[in-house]
Amino acid sequence: MTIKAIAFDAYGTLLDVYSVGALAEKLFPGKGAAIAITWRDKQIEYTRLRTMCDRFVDFWQVTGDALDYACDAQGVDLTADARTALMAEYEELTAFAENHAALTRLQDAGMPMAVLTNGSAGMIAAALKAAKLAGFFDHVLSVDSVQKFKTAPEVYQMGPDAFGCAASEILFVSSNCWDICGATWFGYHTIWLNRYDQPMERLGVEPSARGKTLTDVADYLLG
Amino acid sequence: MTIKAIAFDAYGTLLDVYSVGALAEKLFPGKGAAIAITWRDKQIEYTRLRTMCDRFVDFWQVTGDALDYACDAQGVDLTADARTALMAEYEELTAFAENHAALTRLQDAGMPMAVLTNGSAGMIAAALKAAKLAGFFDHVLSVDSVQKFKTAPEVYQMGPDAFGCAASEILFVSSNCWDICGATWFGYHTIWLNRYDQPMERLGVEPSARGKTLTDVADYLLG
Repeated sequence: MTIKAIAFDAYGTLLDVYSVGALAEKLFPGKGAAIAITWRDKQIEYTRLRTMCDRFVDFWQVTGDALDYACDAQGVDLTADARTALMAEYEELTAFAENHAALTRLQDAGMPMAVLTNGSAGMIAAALKAAKLAGFFDHVLSVDSVQKFKTAPEVYQMGPDAFGCAASEILFVSSNCWDICGATWFGYHTIWLNRYDQPMERLGVEPSARGKTLTDVADYLLG
Repeated sequence: MTIKAIAFDAYGTLLDVYSVGALAEKLFPGKGAAIAITWRDKQIEYTRLRTMCDRFVDFWQVTGDALDYACDAQGVDLTADARTALMAEYEELTAFAENHAALTRLQDAGMPMAVLTNGSAGMIAAALKAAKLAGFFDHVLSVDSVQKFKTAPEVYQMGPDAFGCAASEILFVSSNCWDICGATWFGYHTIWLNRYDQPMERLGVEPSARGKTLTDVADYLLG
């Protein structure tokens, strides 16, 4: 294989969204885990429904809508202060522990790198800055540019367009298996980081490679 | 309002999918509910991912794939016999108790009626026959014809095409709120049958009307 560049998913792959659930549990004891799960599920569901129906609004709006649904579903009263605090978590996520070292190895090897995310331009810029990751990336590609969310082909096309090479020459990295399936269908070389030991999605498509953390990405490319 | 025809969603709206979960619980005691929930969630998720990426396979295939995932996620061994039995449930669903009377009232009033479903042509024909509902419908519209799943506009377009009138003159009926949102965006007059007291989806769109059972549809149109 010839890999000329890397495109990383952001949420769950570079950025740990665990803190969101932790704050939800602190605010709504006993219901935080359920709220966090529904919040994430609805966030993703809304991106897909809006994309299929050509009703794009940005990820910040979708994330807030999903939070409102999750709290309604759990029967909790979401105050304006709690809403602001939970949404703010999305701009202050921490990087996974191994990321800095792994990204440094890849950068030192001269590998061009991008983030390719459902996040809005504002959200992802704030989150990368807060996590001290911004300096690693040549491109930060937000779906804002194409007004569709993953797994629309127009989103994945941003990678080849930014790097000026074929999708098959770009390693696409995500911990979200559905994202890996979409990227593999599109034509990327893919590595699924199965951080939480989840089953492979049954979509008739397999990633090019598998790993668990970003260290596995550096090992895969650099040996 | 002038309603000239009605289009019904099938699974969960006309046909009760409860029996699927009941058999899952019988086969996998203590894990049946979790399997049934994941099975349904993945079934819907796969329809959307395949539609966004233009990788259509029919609903029978998607339903089997989702079952395989659900059993894997719960760590249970799905034998060939158990798989056959669970899949067969989808062709032997029962109608909700009130459906026959409500559909008879609408038919007697001369209202043209259709089923508009993600189901494959074979699945939906078998299920309507088993539930003794087939005689009520002038059209049975399967996504097989357009090779995309809901909420793609091409799916909803089948209604106006079949009835020869505008979407705004057709009442679209579904118990699936996301389906109602897609249909409302498309332009249908919609009624959401909230059978299970779920929160309204936060997608910035509201159904034209709400109800709980098919009786409410007949009351809404016939008074």
